[in-house]
Amino acid sequence: MAKELGALIAQRGWVLLNGGRNQGVMAASAEGAKQAGGTVIGILPDSTDGHASPHLDFAIMTDMGDGRNLLNVLSSDVVIACLGKLGTLSEVVLALKRDKRVILLGWELTDPQFARFAKTGQLTDAKTPEDAVEQVSAALSIRAASAGER
Amino acid sequence: MAKELGALIAQRGWVLLNGGRNQGVMAASAEGAKQAGGTVIGILPDSTDGHASPHLDFAIMTDMGDGRNLLNVLSSDVVIACLGKLGTLSEVVLALKRDKRVILLGWELTDPQFARFAKTGQLTDAKTPEDAVEQVSAALSIRAASAGER
Amino acid sequence: MAKELGALIAQRGWVLLNGGRNQGVMAASAEGAKQAGGTVIGILPDSTDGHASPHLDFAIMTDMGDGRNLLNVLSSDVVIACLGKLGTLSEVVLALKRDKRVILLGWELTDPQFARFAKTGQLTDAKTPEDAVEQVSAALSIRAASAGER
Amino acid sequence: MAKELGALIAQRGWVLLNGGRNQGVMAASAEGAKQAGGTVIGILPDSTDGHASPHLDFAIMTDMGDGRNLLNVLSSDVVIACLGKLGTLSEVVLALKRDKRVILLGWELTDPQFARFAKTGQLTDAKTPEDAVEQVSAALSIRAASAGER
Repeated sequence: MAKELGALIAQRGWVLLNGGRNQGVMAASAEGAKQAGGTVIGILPDSTDGHASPHLDFAIMTDMGDGRNLLNVLSSDVVIACLGKLGTLSEVVLALKRDKRVILLGWELTDPQFARFAKTGQLTDAKTPEDAVEQVSAALSIRAASAGER
Repeated sequence: MAKELGALIAQRGWVLLNGGRNQGVMAASAEGAKQAGGTVIGILPDSTDGHASPHLDFAIMTDMGDGRNLLNVLSSDVVIACLGKLGTLSEVVLALKRDKRVILLGWELTDPQFARFAKTGQLTDAKTPEDAVEQVSAALSIRAASAGER
Repeated sequence: MAKELGALIAQRGWVLLNGGRNQGVMAASAEGAKQAGGTVIGILPDSTDGHASPHLDFAIMTDMGDGRNLLNVLSSDVVIACLGKLGTLSEVVLALKRDKRVILLGWELTDPQFARFAKTGQLTDAKTPEDAVEQVSAALSIRAASAGER
Repeated sequence: MAKELGALIAQRGWVLLNGGRNQGVMAASAEGAKQAGGTVIGILPDSTDGHASPHLDFAIMTDMGDGRNLLNVLSSDVVIACLGKLGTLSEVVLALKRDKRVILLGWELTDPQFARFAKTGQLTDAKTPEDAVEQVSAALSIRAASAGER
């Protein structure tokens, strides 16, 4: 699913930015995006690119461990979170805190802490990669319209 | 409740470390700890101590915004999370990721992502500050015993 | 000189990575690189792209202030430092510490602390942008040869 | 000399804050301060206290590598730099950038970049630990007087 998501992101002409390592969702989405001719940026927790996915166009080295998760979030226009572990969850939480639009792909968050973000539409879930990408497109349109009004 | 928690931490002879700002749970727990004769360290998101609680003994300035939440977690032996907003939640998630013992004071996390941590006892909840402090004490004893075995 | 340097970097097919802000050497080198058809990444000290150069292809937001200088260094293969202020100097020092090849364009560092790096050739100076770019090319060839031997 | 400096800092009733590791100037100054009954905080580049000096009262873990050098600087009122390597030099540069008073103990910086800071008195050198501590005292008096005027 992550690979398909990467491909769809590339087909839209968007840049895929993720945590950059050669494992799990990061590696799969990077591979999908590259195979579809897209551009991939990885923000790595490491000080070198020794653990980087081979599918990155650009590797940003931070030497910050999990501290780089905030950078992933701040550098993204919209955040799509594939079902992952705690690193992904920390990105979802930080993204909501920093007012980013967040889409959960293939999972949900039901704790009361998340209810108000679901209510305003800042946090939604998507059943499929196509659905997620459609939601990103809508979010970017709203942003563009809102910027145009200023 | 945060103020009472701070006082209890101080009475145990432990150091209170929190986010350091002069607001909410951070300020209340710092005040409680200081009034009970304790020591308080604040790790601030800011580059100066302009927004620091007046009850800190030591202020660490990071200029990292929410990025400092990871430092709070890494620098703590045990994490007690009072019901807060997304900043607190990000600290809970990062603490679990970094294998820290986490106690939720006055709230719960029921999302499936948290279930396995509840199962192993890494994540528990406490009804009262006294309960939380008792759980910290037990966690520190286990750590000390485990270190002694090495 | 920074603008010309950016153009030469682009003509070589290399990526220009700098601090990303819309001022001084950062803005000038980014402009030069873009006009020559190159790719520019900016790693910003800010949490948004409000102060970013309009000539960036990709903006990485860190919300780390001067703390992002280390990321610039770690993410670069070779560091060219145009005569700047203390931010630039901190990058030179961190780059040397992290074993990066550093070229000073249009200035020198004569303090004894730098002597051993000049002696080994890790730190050199260049009189012109052309000279700097030639030195980068040589450094990259040595790296490639050394990687090939492994 | 670092050990003597630590002792003198403790005798003045000041807190010693340094990089926290169990090596070189960090370890020696921490030991001196503790033996003189002082308080020592270490801001470590690591994610655990495995490499911490045994003379720390408080260890702050950052998992940021050299990125923690900025935190040392921001969290200090005055910076005393014993002759060290590039890590120390990066702290001197960042401290000057962030408007901190800097005292070089037992060495000098003669590059033109530093001249204007020497001119204004922001950067000075000291021959002995006693001299350095006297200069800190004077700097803190000026700060206190300036705060009193507000």
